[in-house]
Amino acid sequence: MHSERIRLASLLDRIVSAAQAVELIEDGMTVGMSGFGGSGDAKAIPLALVERAKREPLKINLITGASLGKGLDGLMTEAGVLARRMPFQGDPILRRAINAGEVMFIDQHLSDVVEQMRDGHIPTPDVAVIEAVAITERGHIVPTSSVGNSASLALAAKRVIVELNLGCNPLLEGMHDIHIPRERPDRQPIPLVRPDDRIGSPTIEIDPEKIAAIVVCDTPETAYPILPPDDETQAIANHLIGFFEREVASGRLASNLAPLQVGVGTIANAVMYGLVDSPFSDLVLYSEVLQDSAFALFDAGRLKFASGCSITLSGDCGRRVFADLGKYRDRVVLRPQEISNHPEVARRLGIIGINTALEFDIYGNVNSSHVGGTHMMNGIGGSGDFTRNARLAIFVSKSIAKDGAISSVVPMVSHVDHTEHDVDILVTEQGLADLRGLAPRERARRIIDNCVHPSYRAALNGYFERACARGGQTPHLLEEALAWHINQQRRGHMLADG
Amino acid sequence: MHSERIRLASLLDRIVSAAQAVELIEDGMTVGMSGFGGSGDAKAIPLALVERAKREPLKINLITGASLGKGLDGLMTEAGVLARRMPFQGDPILRRAINAGEVMFIDQHLSDVVEQMRDGHIPTPDVAVIEAVAITERGHIVPTSSVGNSASLALAAKRVIVELNLGCNPLLEGMHDIHIPRERPDRQPIPLVRPDDRIGSPTIEIDPEKIAAIVVCDTPETAYPILPPDDETQAIANHLIGFFEREVASGRLASNLAPLQVGVGTIANAVMYGLVDSPFSDLVLYSEVLQDSAFALFDAGRLKFASGCSITLSGDCGRRVFADLGKYRDRVVLRPQEISNHPEVARRLGIIGINTALEFDIYGNVNSSHVGGTHMMNGIGGSGDFTRNARLAIFVSKSIAKDGAISSVVPMVSHVDHTEHDVDILVTEQGLADLRGLAPRERARRIIDNCVHPSYRAALNGYFERACARGGQTPHLLEEALAWHINQQRRGHMLADG
Repeated sequence: MHSERIRLASLLDRIVSAAQAVELIEDGMTVGMSGFGGSGDAKAIPLALVERAKREPLKINLITGASLGKGLDGLMTEAGVLARRMPFQGDPILRRAINAGEVMFIDQHLSDVVEQMRDGHIPTPDVAVIEAVAITERGHIVPTSSVGNSASLALAAKRVIVELNLGCNPLLEGMHDIHIPRERPDRQPIPLVRPDDRIGSPTIEIDPEKIAAIVVCDTPETAYPILPPDDETQAIANHLIGFFEREVASGRLASNLAPLQVGVGTIANAVMYGLVDSPFSDLVLYSEVLQDSAFALFDAGRLKFASGCSITLSGDCGRRVFADLGKYRDRVVLRPQEISNHPEVARRLGIIGINTALEFDIYGNVNSSHVGGTHMMNGIGGSGDFTRNARLAIFVSKSIAKDGAISSVVPMVSHVDHTEHDVDILVTEQGLADLRGLAPRERARRIIDNCVHPSYRAALNGYFERACARGGQTPHLLEEALAWHINQQRRGHMLADG
Repeated sequence: MHSERIRLASLLDRIVSAAQAVELIEDGMTVGMSGFGGSGDAKAIPLALVERAKREPLKINLITGASLGKGLDGLMTEAGVLARRMPFQGDPILRRAINAGEVMFIDQHLSDVVEQMRDGHIPTPDVAVIEAVAITERGHIVPTSSVGNSASLALAAKRVIVELNLGCNPLLEGMHDIHIPRERPDRQPIPLVRPDDRIGSPTIEIDPEKIAAIVVCDTPETAYPILPPDDETQAIANHLIGFFEREVASGRLASNLAPLQVGVGTIANAVMYGLVDSPFSDLVLYSEVLQDSAFALFDAGRLKFASGCSITLSGDCGRRVFADLGKYRDRVVLRPQEISNHPEVARRLGIIGINTALEFDIYGNVNSSHVGGTHMMNGIGGSGDFTRNARLAIFVSKSIAKDGAISSVVPMVSHVDHTEHDVDILVTEQGLADLRGLAPRERARRIIDNCVHPSYRAALNGYFERACARGGQTPHLLEEALAWHINQQRRGHMLADG
């Protein structure tokens, strides 16, 4: 039984129940788990940890690729299992615990996690839990629909628990390309020079002796709810397509643009849907999470190749794509997040990075992570990896939120994730601000003219003009700079300063 | 005459006066000039521009490597020559004009300038003005004491003016290593894997037909005034050396540490002097500006090799080093700033980056550039290139300024250049905060305990505790977050809120 999926016979007797396997994890341990964008996550062991924590004290430091699906982070939070959590999350219950100071959350650039582990900045895992579609004849692990940090976590861990998920399409085998940079000072260049290059192994090449337990399960791929495009996201897409057309016409971009990176989330995904009806073809993604829009672009004949570190799809799209994986598998590669997000590769390829801003300010500084400057939403994720090194760093946002009580364009962001140095283009449904080669005062003029909702334009103009009268490279009125956020917290509207 | 320095005979008749050469520059042009850290800068043409602007309207967009020496930026500002200036400056007169909004200053990561030029974000120069120690038999340019952006500016410019500086030691020839990355999508990995690798040409390989004028001058190397170490910089150095010793003892660093990058300026330079009496040897610099301290470390037998993009020395040290250049030239290489500061290389080598902060906040966000959040000091320079990609990103600062009226540690920085994600270690004369692997609330505790001046500690503790009571991943009291800066501006002391 399972010999097709566990092809090293000596490992067959390591099959145990999740309740047995979870005994390998002790209170206080650091645990690494697969999972990125709610995809390819270990599922049985997190639930077994929750069960065990009902009987005995059990707190762990949890390192994943990025967010887990199926509410697993929330369940572990409620059970009190999480002491420390890195590098990203997207769970409402965990988010509440983080903001209450109950779980220590280390919010990290996603390309940087395993580098920090090698350098000894963060602990290496005692146990790694990796979802797999198979274990090869050599005892190597074939991941499922994400790679994330799985390879380096498994290689660094003392012991590994494999969750063999029979619900995953075996055609996933061969879609992964796992390259692990050498230790310094013997580090070599990452040999990837084109988005479709294969530079590594299709499996995680661990010593099979480290596989201490195999848990067999049969759960479907996680479905990731995604909102449909709306008039505003379509308007954002149209502004962006118009910009790309002008860039191609001017010769600054080729007719197939440049390798695209697209952030997770509804707005960026909807913008990508907009490319289905664009004049561009032979597009290439060099991205992190491959979402529904990537497969819509494949089906529309627009997309030639997609490199990512996870496939994260909505229910309908996921059922369709995973059932018909053969149609796509030669045009998709899944890499470790260290490689999909690596500064070296992003700069070499000259990617166009499209990410979602929570808010941005009149100078083009971007807040991706902190509501009201204090409360964590999800984390910085890969946005910094791409933005800093992109050929074109683009942020998209609707110009207002909460029926206009919040402007996404503010005098000063309440938290900075990306500085003005790194942000080239800002787009809202109102328009597009091209900030390249501009000084801060020029950036402000362009952002206010092009991106701000009309109901906030006069207020921002007034702020900017009064600030300029005081002078500076980056004029501000420090006593008013955060007043909009304070108003919103106290009175429910950014301009209600009565 | 000059045939030893101008070795392509057909170029000898292009020797003209500075007043003649400057006629190649027209009002409204974009001009590229050599110069980085006040070293290797064109000197005659800037002065000729100043003279000409007395007679006729003349405004240019000026792109350099980084700062110019000898007050050139100030003289050009006073003459009204500068319309736009990038990517860095360090001149008090230009600074005033920038902050008054009279000169548009585009403050850029120094590794990114020529990449932005290739991508068409900023204009290519109509004319480039490059200081040279010689022109070779093939008509190629040998730069002087900096490379900076000189090579890419000369290659991109329509016409080139060479300032042949007879005052520069001809032994500079051979010390440069000029590698220019290929255009995308054919970009290849930068083949540098060790700090002392040579991967390019010793000269700037331009078409000699582009050399439109040669101006011969004879000015000494620029002297860069540098303050001597004091008790506080020594205390900072001691904290850092203690930290390095513990890292070596723990096995996280090798006994010769890792390639060091050291920012420009008095404090970082003084910290480096501290390494003269440290237990470390076989040190290697992979840095930007090589300052006095680098040569002190050579002389003390501590330093094995230094890679930089300019040599910027004080008067005494400069006279000594440039007179005795043969002693050092095999152990020093000067590269384009794109390579000395490249994210790809910084990450590959795993550099330790030591830079100076203007201020930092309790969560470890760093302001490197803006006084009071609004007024430009010099620019972000290379600090972001190194910090984001360093193995260890360290910022140093004295804990107070202006006799205690200013605390360098504040509730919230008034301007963010480096986010908490990228900052590993903070050091003041009070102590060292090791922030690796910590969540923001933990970072705050460690920074307040270790780095803050005693006269500000109670106030920061109070702020942090009251902020924590309100919650959040990064607790703040938005209505007080910038109050220290406002107090300082209005009442001359950060805590004078009466």
